[in-house]
Amino acid sequence: MAEFKILQREAAGFARRGQLMTAHGVVETPCFMPVGTKATVKGLTPRQLTEEVQAQIILANTYHLFLRPGPELIKKLGGVHKFMGWSGPLLTDSGGFQVFSLSALRRIEEGGVTFRSPIDGSSHQLSPESSIAIQEALGADIIMAFDECTPHPATPEQALDSLELTARWAERSKTARKRPDNLLFGIVQGSVYPELRKLSLEKTVDVGFDGYALGGLSVGEGQQVMYDVVREFGPLLPELTPRYLMGVGTPEDLLVAVAAGLDMFDCVMPTRNARNGMYFTRRGPLTIKQARFREDQGPIDNKCDCYTCRNFSRAYLRHLFVSKEILSSVLATIHNLYFYNQLMADMRSTLEAGRFQQFKKSFLTAYKESDL
Amino acid sequence: MAEFKILQREAAGFARRGQLMTAHGVVETPCFMPVGTKATVKGLTPRQLTEEVQAQIILANTYHLFLRPGPELIKKLGGVHKFMGWSGPLLTDSGGFQVFSLSALRRIEEGGVTFRSPIDGSSHQLSPESSIAIQEALGADIIMAFDECTPHPATPEQALDSLELTARWAERSKTARKRPDNLLFGIVQGSVYPELRKLSLEKTVDVGFDGYALGGLSVGEGQQVMYDVVREFGPLLPELTPRYLMGVGTPEDLLVAVAAGLDMFDCVMPTRNARNGMYFTRRGPLTIKQARFREDQGPIDNKCDCYTCRNFSRAYLRHLFVSKEILSSVLATIHNLYFYNQLMADMRSTLEAGRFQQFKKSFLTAYKESDL
Repeated sequence: MAEFKILQREAAGFARRGQLMTAHGVVETPCFMPVGTKATVKGLTPRQLTEEVQAQIILANTYHLFLRPGPELIKKLGGVHKFMGWSGPLLTDSGGFQVFSLSALRRIEEGGVTFRSPIDGSSHQLSPESSIAIQEALGADIIMAFDECTPHPATPEQALDSLELTARWAERSKTARKRPDNLLFGIVQGSVYPELRKLSLEKTVDVGFDGYALGGLSVGEGQQVMYDVVREFGPLLPELTPRYLMGVGTPEDLLVAVAAGLDMFDCVMPTRNARNGMYFTRRGPLTIKQARFREDQGPIDNKCDCYTCRNFSRAYLRHLFVSKEILSSVLATIHNLYFYNQLMADMRSTLEAGRFQQFKKSFLTAYKESDL
Repeated sequence: MAEFKILQREAAGFARRGQLMTAHGVVETPCFMPVGTKATVKGLTPRQLTEEVQAQIILANTYHLFLRPGPELIKKLGGVHKFMGWSGPLLTDSGGFQVFSLSALRRIEEGGVTFRSPIDGSSHQLSPESSIAIQEALGADIIMAFDECTPHPATPEQALDSLELTARWAERSKTARKRPDNLLFGIVQGSVYPELRKLSLEKTVDVGFDGYALGGLSVGEGQQVMYDVVREFGPLLPELTPRYLMGVGTPEDLLVAVAAGLDMFDCVMPTRNARNGMYFTRRGPLTIKQARFREDQGPIDNKCDCYTCRNFSRAYLRHLFVSKEILSSVLATIHNLYFYNQLMADMRSTLEAGRFQQFKKSFLTAYKESDL
């Protein structure tokens, strides 16, 4: 695909360094996408996202924007970029993941999913056709096929039924697409069963997409099982298109997945944990509320040059957290997203320099030896 | 006083344009001080305060910082400026106002006020000596004498007792001061009684301070009564030192008070109301949650060039507010503080141009004619 250029491949490995061209600019890969669920990365202005976090691309959730304020309104106001004041690349998910999480409130049928809004109880349907129409109304640069995120645990029979439904929905998603200015990604399911993952991959590639995602992971299967799937199927995803691991993960997860040839990631962990006072550092996560940080004059991470680390002590950040100040969430979010983006930038530069495996090893050693 | 320079006086009126020199820079007056209660102006980074809001000077609350994290810690960490990453001028109040508000939890005696911490129930005392010591440990550029904020309503007898206590505490506050690098302001009480205000003013001036504040207003006496006190006693405060109206107020209040010769103001209104979805505009306040803003593509105020108005529609800001997003508080706070600072800047420039009264009149006309 002309939209994706691979600049560098590992000599002995699967990791790659690339560039993804979108309607709102180029994304350097491997990349992390901060999650902006309701058309806002919680607590940060777009200016902070650009200047403090150096975010390249963000993600917004179709399900949430569908319910409020609604895709018609956002389209009328010029699309989600203009609506939220973000001028860079943006990806929307299909809405399926959140709808399936409603469990008691939804019913899955061949046509799509009927569900009740937790906001006002009103009844709605999401289908491949409506999901694509909503995502195109929002105007994202990258949109996702409507899939069923296979729950965990699932029997092989359930997982097979589910991936076959996802495959039929993938075909319908592709047919439903109307705009020429976005990229449409397909999603590979198959639960924890290699044969079923392989089958889902074949069916998804048969439909043909601008990029491919591994879905249905990080849903309770455990880290080792997830790593097994990522290590086996990362390299098997089509090589010339971007590969996206949905909803993952920790810094370790990202290193393992990039090593397996994945290019794109999103996860609420850096933003959600920030609001709970958890800061990522190169020596492991740090929980700021701990009493031992009460008089600590040092920054969160003395090797980090983010706005938060350049300007504030652990003592001040602890004070903000225990005082339940909004600024605690803001400064922690800035730090954590900067940390994630810096990790991806380090992966890109070491891939260019042919030192990715050394970087991965030394990062994981320092991260595990955490004495924080 | 060499620290305060009056650059311009109204030909027929009391308003003046000045400059106040502090250890952390010059403050152009009349000025508004955003409130940063717990060493943070809620939701904003110091960078946003400087770049988006153009704040000149901010206020922090001695009472809150006394209880948490404590003045010893802040002193150890280099003072409140370094602690919170704010390099400009900063004023602390005496802590008295908040302590007196604890009502059932405090006991007032000649020596000072004994009270229980609402955080952990521990017992503390604030006195003129300890208030000054705390403020000097925090390291504010402008510190306030420890006064009793006379409650409203008060009988003339109660108000007299109270102002006499304040006068004795003023003397002790001045004696307690040790640092040469701050300015110490005295506070005039006297409730709503002109004779008692006059007596309190004389007693406070007798002690001698670097600036004088009108205290005990905006505590339930009503706008007209407050205006009467401000109009009568603003011009009677010593002319060559800065005059500070504590805890006031609305845009109208600020115009009336500047016309009466006041120079400095603080109020939680722009920040607190922001968090409740209330935006100040030149045509009056706007409550963003109203349904009629749901599809409104325009900015909050089309004559405002703040970050919020330059980048976001009323529809998006309403979406953030109804979705209870942190960014709602952030963007509204940026707008409201910019609005207040712009109002003060307009007062300064029209004072320089000899057009202050016209500006005041046209602002109040537009503000009252609000059809928002």
